[in-house]
Amino acid sequence: MRAVDLIRKKRDSGELSREEINFLVSGYTRGEIPDYQMAAWLMAVWIRGMNRAEIAALTEAMLHSGEVVNHSEIPDKKVDKHSTGGIGDKPSLILAPVVAAGGLTVPMISGRGLGHTGGTLDKLEAIPGFNVNLSLEEFRRVLRKCGMALIGQTAEIAPADKKIYALRDVTSTVENIGLICASIMSKKLAEGIDALVLDVKTGSGAFMKKEEDAIRLAEVMVETGKSMGKKVVALITSMDQPLGRMAGHSNEVAESIEVLKGRGTADLRDLSLDLSAWMFFLGERTKSVDEGRHLAETMIATGQALEKFRQGIRLQGGDERVIDEPQRLPQPRFHLDVASSAAGFIASTDCEQFGIALAMLGGGREKKEDHIDHSVGLEFHKRIGDHVEKEEPLATIHYNKDAKLAEAKNRIADSYHISAEAPREKQALVRRLIGA
Amino acid sequence: MRAVDLIRKKRDSGELSREEINFLVSGYTRGEIPDYQMAAWLMAVWIRGMNRAEIAALTEAMLHSGEVVNHSEIPDKKVDKHSTGGIGDKPSLILAPVVAAGGLTVPMISGRGLGHTGGTLDKLEAIPGFNVNLSLEEFRRVLRKCGMALIGQTAEIAPADKKIYALRDVTSTVENIGLICASIMSKKLAEGIDALVLDVKTGSGAFMKKEEDAIRLAEVMVETGKSMGKKVVALITSMDQPLGRMAGHSNEVAESIEVLKGRGTADLRDLSLDLSAWMFFLGERTKSVDEGRHLAETMIATGQALEKFRQGIRLQGGDERVIDEPQRLPQPRFHLDVASSAAGFIASTDCEQFGIALAMLGGGREKKEDHIDHSVGLEFHKRIGDHVEKEEPLATIHYNKDAKLAEAKNRIADSYHISAEAPREKQALVRRLIGA
Repeated sequence: MRAVDLIRKKRDSGELSREEINFLVSGYTRGEIPDYQMAAWLMAVWIRGMNRAEIAALTEAMLHSGEVVNHSEIPDKKVDKHSTGGIGDKPSLILAPVVAAGGLTVPMISGRGLGHTGGTLDKLEAIPGFNVNLSLEEFRRVLRKCGMALIGQTAEIAPADKKIYALRDVTSTVENIGLICASIMSKKLAEGIDALVLDVKTGSGAFMKKEEDAIRLAEVMVETGKSMGKKVVALITSMDQPLGRMAGHSNEVAESIEVLKGRGTADLRDLSLDLSAWMFFLGERTKSVDEGRHLAETMIATGQALEKFRQGIRLQGGDERVIDEPQRLPQPRFHLDVASSAAGFIASTDCEQFGIALAMLGGGREKKEDHIDHSVGLEFHKRIGDHVEKEEPLATIHYNKDAKLAEAKNRIADSYHISAEAPREKQALVRRLIGA
Repeated sequence: MRAVDLIRKKRDSGELSREEINFLVSGYTRGEIPDYQMAAWLMAVWIRGMNRAEIAALTEAMLHSGEVVNHSEIPDKKVDKHSTGGIGDKPSLILAPVVAAGGLTVPMISGRGLGHTGGTLDKLEAIPGFNVNLSLEEFRRVLRKCGMALIGQTAEIAPADKKIYALRDVTSTVENIGLICASIMSKKLAEGIDALVLDVKTGSGAFMKKEEDAIRLAEVMVETGKSMGKKVVALITSMDQPLGRMAGHSNEVAESIEVLKGRGTADLRDLSLDLSAWMFFLGERTKSVDEGRHLAETMIATGQALEKFRQGIRLQGGDERVIDEPQRLPQPRFHLDVASSAAGFIASTDCEQFGIALAMLGGGREKKEDHIDHSVGLEFHKRIGDHVEKEEPLATIHYNKDAKLAEAKNRIADSYHISAEAPREKQALVRRLIGA
């Protein structure tokens, strides 16, 4: 078998066999196939596409390029959630303790933020001392002790994905459903889980702006997971505006703690409970999703989820006092309101722009090497459908440096579209369910 | 400007500007853009294509990646010919001395054979002592002295093409009209010529098997050359069977000398005269193509072309005695006839297979590093339309080693398609003229 022939086959819209895909992925991971051949193949894949069998084969080849964690010593079902990312997208911080408190194990391997979206690892690092870089051995130890652990991708997990992702980033081959699916699913399946709930975002703040693209990605991921013997469902959820009231790292940890205390905004609480409910159901902890939802609500109402989060922070070296004293999270020096230039109703938002503004202020990464200022954040006062007076604050910027403040402020102000009329109907946050 | 954005633009079927193409080619030549980004871009180009303006810009960028030879000290017009290659395709060896003898200058930078086709440089090296590796200074000296010189691509000539061609070869991005055009034309225009005659082959022995593909490539090359101020025409010619009676290196030199002596087969003589005629006309040596044809015939009839070839061989260090004593060319040890398995008429040939059989016997390269045995060759006794008896020889193999002899013999025998009926009409060798 020769890489050059497999490149040609995909270039000419052919279907690659499982063996051929394995040859490419394992050869590339071992350094026997050079970057330039993989780059040509990735571009051919981006343009010509892959069918379901090829996507499943690619996912499996990437999964088996490294270690697949074995938690067989833990009797509970192992479940996880993955979100495709957005603004203020923090349910992981809420549902991990909820589901662990409810009796399942959540071995969550997460990513960092890049571009306009935040990353769970970065958010957790806003908690002083919190260590996301556990070895697989430490990961298993924390999981056994408290039923949840949140870490970053180790060198042992899907090394092919690490190498391929870095190449896609510099060859404009990122936004392809098959490649995205293989990247996400190879990492998630390496966690050693029984079931996975996917939160596939769509709308102005999501990678998949169009709902049909989000549905296609969800379908492919669900089918790929199922073909590998896992229980998988996907919720297609709205990212037309930020989730909850807060964006930024300290801000989102604090808001998640609020929800675990039974407070917080309805949208964030609802989505976190819905995702938890599905995790309980797929993890066979409850007989129905409704029952799962009830269990999730109970875990919050009784404070068990909050205590689970406290335990998890402690076991990963974090300062658990942030639970009661959120001011121990990094705090910004300054606040600035972004006022509305007109009176009316919020018709829509350019949600992605909030993330870009946040990154500009130091609360996100433009390049991989960028350092994050965890204290920087945005607070959103108005949601779609809300009425706003002229000069009334739409949002508040939490910042430390003036550098790009004016530009960020304008970007935020311009992202609110205000109309004289109230929007006709409220869009549901959960738009659709795939694979149930 | 960033390479990743230009890759994305082509991936999404966008048109690249002249500046953008320059950025890619010059950055890649200088080593600032890595192989993997160029590979992704080449695959996007292969699949999405380039328009005429992009092809012209790419050709120009590759041309100006190195030195453009300046022959302004030579008052004659500089003209050249390029063929896309085939079996027994030797007119360069005939027309260069014909046209130089007729008063124009032929600064020919040629290539080597790869795959099923032969290369002019390899053929010349069958002449003992002949040196194709002249420096640009020596090249100019020989040109000034005798009006013709035949050399290989030096490091100074279109280095971008050398680097890009090597990458295309290993990333399955070779067969694309825009990329082929840029590769050929950047090298030919670097020779410092005023006019170029293209011989674009089509048929079973050509790279472009379909005539419409050959026409498209010819049109693009003609337009690109014209857009850069050169006179260019293309002849679309048949490669449905070998050109002339001989293939192989010694064989083809000997056959070319035969034509220069006023002998040789009609097809080879006619095509060489036609191409010479167009070179005389485009080089403004004659007022018409017919007059050019007459001048070419005269150069042969008077022996002036033969003497020019003798002088050219001497000036490039070769043994000029091969002109009168062709047995001084490397000779094979053995001959083997390939007999017809049936009586009938030759209906068609799988012409490419003759080249593959020749390469198998050592008379061509399968890989770039392969050594060529110049004495190996094929002699063809029958042409399309000829009658053949059962057991009558179709061809004779000139060989030294038995190794793949049986396989080569079968391949050759199978390449002749014999039918009970004589073919209706004879196809013209020159099918079409582009750009006149």
